[in-house]
Amino acid sequence: MSEPILDIVAIGNAIVDVISQEDDAFIASHALTKGGMQLVDTEQAELLYSAMSSGLEISGGSAANTLAGMAALGCSCAFIGQVRDDQLGDIFAHDIRALGISFETAVATDGPPTARCLIMVTPDAQRTMNTFLGASQFLPPSALDLDMIRSARILYLEGYLWDPEQPRAAMRSAIAAAREAGREVAFTLSDAFVIARHGDDFRALIEEGQIDILFSNESEITALAGTNDVEKAIATFAPRLRTLVVTRSEKGAIAIRDGERHTVTAAPVEKVLDTTGAGDLFTAGFLAGYVRGKAPTQCLEMGALCAAEVISHYGARPEKDLKGLLGGLLD
Amino acid sequence: MSEPILDIVAIGNAIVDVISQEDDAFIASHALTKGGMQLVDTEQAELLYSAMSSGLEISGGSAANTLAGMAALGCSCAFIGQVRDDQLGDIFAHDIRALGISFETAVATDGPPTARCLIMVTPDAQRTMNTFLGASQFLPPSALDLDMIRSARILYLEGYLWDPEQPRAAMRSAIAAAREAGREVAFTLSDAFVIARHGDDFRALIEEGQIDILFSNESEITALAGTNDVEKAIATFAPRLRTLVVTRSEKGAIAIRDGERHTVTAAPVEKVLDTTGAGDLFTAGFLAGYVRGKAPTQCLEMGALCAAEVISHYGARPEKDLKGLLGGLLD
Repeated sequence: MSEPILDIVAIGNAIVDVISQEDDAFIASHALTKGGMQLVDTEQAELLYSAMSSGLEISGGSAANTLAGMAALGCSCAFIGQVRDDQLGDIFAHDIRALGISFETAVATDGPPTARCLIMVTPDAQRTMNTFLGASQFLPPSALDLDMIRSARILYLEGYLWDPEQPRAAMRSAIAAAREAGREVAFTLSDAFVIARHGDDFRALIEEGQIDILFSNESEITALAGTNDVEKAIATFAPRLRTLVVTRSEKGAIAIRDGERHTVTAAPVEKVLDTTGAGDLFTAGFLAGYVRGKAPTQCLEMGALCAAEVISHYGARPEKDLKGLLGGLLD
Repeated sequence: MSEPILDIVAIGNAIVDVISQEDDAFIASHALTKGGMQLVDTEQAELLYSAMSSGLEISGGSAANTLAGMAALGCSCAFIGQVRDDQLGDIFAHDIRALGISFETAVATDGPPTARCLIMVTPDAQRTMNTFLGASQFLPPSALDLDMIRSARILYLEGYLWDPEQPRAAMRSAIAAAREAGREVAFTLSDAFVIARHGDDFRALIEEGQIDILFSNESEITALAGTNDVEKAIATFAPRLRTLVVTRSEKGAIAIRDGERHTVTAAPVEKVLDTTGAGDLFTAGFLAGYVRGKAPTQCLEMGALCAAEVISHYGARPEKDLKGLLGGLLD
């Protein structure tokens, strides 16, 4: 097993977010679930977009957001995801490369356009996401650079992308390559809907020891365990994972590592404006500590600080200097 | 002369802004003029974009920004501008319609893509703009709805768009239609470069009495008059215009109407973040007062408040509730 060259390689949705401010009546009248994510087809996407207010566009995608945070913290990162040869694809590729993240997945020249996520932010700072997966769902296993995956300390996978068939197959290949090379696999459960559809897969992956680090929030881990009790859910999965991380919104987060529990409170935020990206950036801070060999408590603290930064402004990628924000924690 | 149906119809660039934060070294190393606007071709646009940091996209365009402000203040508005049938064109069209502005210009199905403006914002809040005019420069005279132009109280024209041949011809037709119908024509000088190229045209339009309301800043009006003395420049043009407005950044603004001078100080801003759109939103506030028949001093105050709002955040379109901000001034 050679020394890793990259800190992390992630496979995720290559998405541009379209963010608008809407009121609760908008969420209700379009029968959306506040705080949740749903997949939409072309027709639904057009209908929703035509009803949305004037917005702003920022590159997004859960795993890509996590890498944006890690790159800002000095980690060496590569991203794998599918865009098309269109304007949103150009924007996504530009933005991720401008952050110093390697992104070499071949651009699709046919098929659906680059993915977009229509995000309504309500006055309570909650985000409601409607994802048109577009090109993202057609990431083929052949797009993977397995040598690159073998060269990275961590392979990070986005649960959202487990839903479409081709990326799922690609992620299975990636897991096999990473494990053969003795690397660690990190996975985020992403959302309740993927657990509803693919819970059996996820439980099997954990059971087989394919996942080293699992990221979830309280509702995801309980859904996966089929219980309402967070402690029961933790007790079910923690023994099978090197590290289990459970985020708890304003209550902070928990990490269980080798049977030992560590906790952190949420970092203070003057005004929460848009919770989009909170989980993604928590993961960024946590993993940036992890690849530096920090203790779980420090990883949790770094995650909490990164999450606090991203919810203080619109958009799911950091705006402020994260290195400066974390200060001594990075030494 | 029938009663106007619309408050304003504007002809301008249909542009999506791409905004990034850069330092002074970036501006210097790319030989850009801080605070200015330059036109770039495809190659220059690609070069600059590849060097820019990760950004965010917001619909822009000078006259379109002005309408965004006026619509937020309850004015009835229509916009004429050329986009292509691409993703940025969809975004521009969506955003302007979502603001309640009528936008019916036929979308181009060939030719260059929708215009974009690469905007670098430096830590001093100055913006440096690099405009790829794309489809915008091919707005044909045939795209004009002359009946609509005749039905609007004010025809507003963006000086930037005087540079390309087809829109210039379109604007000349629009001026003729508006004047025949007894409407007023408002014009913004936009930038020094258009004055350098088209000063003769602008002076002739003023001389012939084709323009009723002229918007400029100090450097534009002096450039147009061929003097360094703002007062001399004002004395040159004011007698030929119903209203001459000269904005003076942090020193406020002046309006000369029927020989009488009115002034306003700049409205206070807690922290100036991005000056993009300051002039556009000043014009929005001023004209929103004007179409309501407000006195020049009130129009100036409304302009100053709208400008102050837009420079307190990124992007050239208002975020806050402008009606609430202006309060009693609107009654």
